[in-house]
Amino acid sequence: MSWDLGTLNTAPRADVVAALGAVFEHAPWVAEATSRRRPFARVEDLFAAMREAVAAAPEAQRRTLLTGHPELAGREARAGRIAADSIAEQAAAGLDRLSEAEFARFDDLNAAYRARFGFPFIVCVKRHGRASLLRTFAARLAGTEEAERRNAEAEVLRIAAIRLAALVSGEGALRTAGRLSTHVLDTASGRPAEGVAVELAEIVSATEAVVVARTETNADGRTDAPLIGGRPVPIAAYELRFGLGDYHRAAGLDLPEPPFLDVVTLRFGVADPEGQYHVPLVASPWGYQTYRGS
Amino acid sequence: MSWDLGTLNTAPRADVVAALGAVFEHAPWVAEATSRRRPFARVEDLFAAMREAVAAAPEAQRRTLLTGHPELAGREARAGRIAADSIAEQAAAGLDRLSEAEFARFDDLNAAYRARFGFPFIVCVKRHGRASLLRTFAARLAGTEEAERRNAEAEVLRIAAIRLAALVSGEGALRTAGRLSTHVLDTASGRPAEGVAVELAEIVSATEAVVVARTETNADGRTDAPLIGGRPVPIAAYELRFGLGDYHRAAGLDLPEPPFLDVVTLRFGVADPEGQYHVPLVASPWGYQTYRGS
Amino acid sequence: MSWDLGTLNTAPRADVVAALGAVFEHAPWVAEATSRRRPFARVEDLFAAMREAVAAAPEAQRRTLLTGHPELAGREARAGRIAADSIAEQAAAGLDRLSEAEFARFDDLNAAYRARFGFPFIVCVKRHGRASLLRTFAARLAGTEEAERRNAEAEVLRIAAIRLAALVSGEGALRTAGRLSTHVLDTASGRPAEGVAVELAEIVSATEAVVVARTETNADGRTDAPLIGGRPVPIAAYELRFGLGDYHRAAGLDLPEPPFLDVVTLRFGVADPEGQYHVPLVASPWGYQTYRGS
Amino acid sequence: MSWDLGTLNTAPRADVVAALGAVFEHAPWVAEATSRRRPFARVEDLFAAMREAVAAAPEAQRRTLLTGHPELAGREARAGRIAADSIAEQAAAGLDRLSEAEFARFDDLNAAYRARFGFPFIVCVKRHGRASLLRTFAARLAGTEEAERRNAEAEVLRIAAIRLAALVSGEGALRTAGRLSTHVLDTASGRPAEGVAVELAEIVSATEAVVVARTETNADGRTDAPLIGGRPVPIAAYELRFGLGDYHRAAGLDLPEPPFLDVVTLRFGVADPEGQYHVPLVASPWGYQTYRGS
Repeated sequence: MSWDLGTLNTAPRADVVAALGAVFEHAPWVAEATSRRRPFARVEDLFAAMREAVAAAPEAQRRTLLTGHPELAGREARAGRIAADSIAEQAAAGLDRLSEAEFARFDDLNAAYRARFGFPFIVCVKRHGRASLLRTFAARLAGTEEAERRNAEAEVLRIAAIRLAALVSGEGALRTAGRLSTHVLDTASGRPAEGVAVELAEIVSATEAVVVARTETNADGRTDAPLIGGRPVPIAAYELRFGLGDYHRAAGLDLPEPPFLDVVTLRFGVADPEGQYHVPLVASPWGYQTYRGS
Repeated sequence: MSWDLGTLNTAPRADVVAALGAVFEHAPWVAEATSRRRPFARVEDLFAAMREAVAAAPEAQRRTLLTGHPELAGREARAGRIAADSIAEQAAAGLDRLSEAEFARFDDLNAAYRARFGFPFIVCVKRHGRASLLRTFAARLAGTEEAERRNAEAEVLRIAAIRLAALVSGEGALRTAGRLSTHVLDTASGRPAEGVAVELAEIVSATEAVVVARTETNADGRTDAPLIGGRPVPIAAYELRFGLGDYHRAAGLDLPEPPFLDVVTLRFGVADPEGQYHVPLVASPWGYQTYRGS
Repeated sequence: MSWDLGTLNTAPRADVVAALGAVFEHAPWVAEATSRRRPFARVEDLFAAMREAVAAAPEAQRRTLLTGHPELAGREARAGRIAADSIAEQAAAGLDRLSEAEFARFDDLNAAYRARFGFPFIVCVKRHGRASLLRTFAARLAGTEEAERRNAEAEVLRIAAIRLAALVSGEGALRTAGRLSTHVLDTASGRPAEGVAVELAEIVSATEAVVVARTETNADGRTDAPLIGGRPVPIAAYELRFGLGDYHRAAGLDLPEPPFLDVVTLRFGVADPEGQYHVPLVASPWGYQTYRGS
Repeated sequence: MSWDLGTLNTAPRADVVAALGAVFEHAPWVAEATSRRRPFARVEDLFAAMREAVAAAPEAQRRTLLTGHPELAGREARAGRIAADSIAEQAAAGLDRLSEAEFARFDDLNAAYRARFGFPFIVCVKRHGRASLLRTFAARLAGTEEAERRNAEAEVLRIAAIRLAALVSGEGALRTAGRLSTHVLDTASGRPAEGVAVELAEIVSATEAVVVARTETNADGRTDAPLIGGRPVPIAAYELRFGLGDYHRAAGLDLPEPPFLDVVTLRFGVADPEGQYHVPLVASPWGYQTYRGS
């Protein structure tokens, strides 16, 4: 359930702690401390206060912020013994549908990481595709203790920001979302291309691609909703697939068999989850172009 | 061994029949009849004479031209009991490396076709990719007897033309070859892109792609040789893959990870095996275009 | 002064007639008749009522709608003896700044037209560039009496629609405006190009071009306002000019002298004044592309 | 008249001196000295020998190489009192068709330059457009005496190289020529665009453009000959103009009036006279692209 900042400013403290207690996993004390500093003019200020509450906490308590976090694709997760938000976030990243081999890989990494740093590997899963997750895991496992402590706390804050943004609305909202969108222009007719089937796949590996969106262009040549929006765009390689041949056939064009352009694929990478990625297809039956638009 | 038309015009008839006897499978009589009409000013005239020899032959003999042909991916082929040229042609089309299921599929089609028309399915395999071969086979199996007789003889002539073009050089050469080529332009630096890894794959099905060429661009942004040349370009869907990200990294550009453009893929179809298909990549680190060039 | 439809529905009839009297030149009787049919749910309904009032009027009165119109760039116009709206409209089209030769040309056309059809040449000047105006004038002068009567009345309604749209706001507004816009993308940096000088010129003839807008791209690579908007886009040939070389120099790029791309010009035509014309520039220092976008 | 290097190697010295005497203006002694060093394996070696003859000459004689040169668009030139080659070169650059004002401007620059440096302004006119010529003149007038001495001798050698390349053919030819070419691709039909009118103009100033080539595309979408070839491409800003609208009309397309694309213009600059500039137009009726190709 979502709160309006104004309501939150005046609600009984107990309700506020109940509402925001889960923003930091197993650490309601952050919400508790923050609630004493109300009212807040902007959501950003509310989050800043939470950050400060964390920074002001004694070392032991700060450390519980890390140790309290569930492992990635870990046994508790599989057994459902982790916080509801974590379950949802890991599921959204497909971590609940891993092969046995992948689970084993994560188990090894988790064990190695905990042995090395004394707390579980923490990452904001919503900002990563599966390949990026493993790349990041391996890279951070090789980092220094000091760097990892910093990385872990930074990720805890990223996770908290996204959870808070979903809970509280109002002025000065947190920028935790990016956008991935497309549109199709028909340069042979000079019109937006309507009714083109569009598919977005995340390229997990040379042999695995997962379709993450399937839709069709509207009269304006755009999709009614962004392909990915209202959340970070996971760091990953993607492939956009357009049914251009079917579009031209439907328009009554006389195409050779096979047509020169049938399913057009655009491969591109996303490195900035909070960025705007507009990847258009400007096409005729015999040529096309794309670019990172705005 | 390749003959010059002039030599052929003056050589002993026996040698000519020996040289051209295999142009029409198991039908040296075509070379025999043709040799009596020498000299020929152009290779085209020589082939025209062969065509006329076929047209002038009695029905029974013409029919042997069809019945004498080996089945596609058939038992004789697998047992090596077919003409050397046929072995090479079927191998080039990958018909010697089919899965058991595919062999079975061909066996069924061959049997059905022979039962229906009384002669084996004949097609100029050099003009087809594997998917197109099966599509064509299924389509022709559904044709009328009259149409199939015409189709089969037309394919016999196509096969003969390609064999003859490989055997005899000189004026008025036969047009039996197409070309598939590419080049890469770097619009950020205004120079041809040198050292870009290029791969051409034939898309056999949604799950199978076979790499048919692997090379690198030269100082002119082109490949030293066409990706496919000196032969028909098999009717098929293709994917060109360019190592653009590696090219930019090698040039010292500072790219995000993953880069927006890493391996760029261009999918296109070839419907005219004797056509010229120039498919360039005009690219910067943040956009690209392609088109059917000349 | 602009009216809200609601107010208009309930205002004293005299005020309404005063407000809308000039929508049809020298014909307050249209507003008079229309005002009796209030209230109107939508502006479109109000205009429909005006159209019907015209259609219902006796022939003599309908004809005054045409005869009452001022000549294009005619003597009365130059002497300021025409309705305020007409003065503004003709001035906006540059008809108050014609050379003597051009005035003479219009005088001849006006005289010939009036002699042939018995009423002045009427056209919605806001929908035409100067070249189109003369082309249209010459073409219509060659038309049949019946066709011209229809054309003239259609133009009277177009003029009225634009005037009404400017006078009355509310639900169901009339579609009398088009839009001409652009944006600039930098495919070498993958960002919108900010600070690019943009100029839009109307190509009047091989030797004359009139700058109609001069601006600069913002952080989103767009112009803060459309180059032409809130009105019909005059039918004409246009040239967009972009200071791309200066943009690259400002970005610190090391360009040759002269640079390959300095002032980039895009020439295009507008044939549909109520249409949306988005004409982007997607450019690197060594190449660019444009297309009719949406 | 053109010589073959072999002939030149064995011809009587007097003939050689007669043939090459004018390569260095009013300095047959260079050819004289060079002729003694025959035979030459490559044209480059011949030119190297000429360069060395100049370098080995006493200061007084070297200076005559500069003082002997005619002024640019100077009185002697206008009076025809300069070497035939110089007349042709200056005419090709349009220096014989200057306005009185332009002649005056050159007279002032010539006088100022000679007063400052003691020898006339020398530049290889074939490498410059008119605007570049004046820009260069003004810039060099501001240079140091030492730099100008170097510049002047470098230009004398450039002029000599071009003259020699025209006189002597054979192995190791001198690279004194660049190339400017184009081609037109129709991405709506997937074919080269045949019969497109192409015009190349040199942009001399904001108000003056001089057409330097006028032709039409052939069946391959190219022009039969490069727009500029076999000589340096003058340093200048250019505009290519393509009759795309007429091409589409001729193809029977139903275009709006005016069409979105009618005469397409591409503006670009040439900074490297010996470079290859391929500037294609890849177009459909509603969009186009260009880039510096190879």
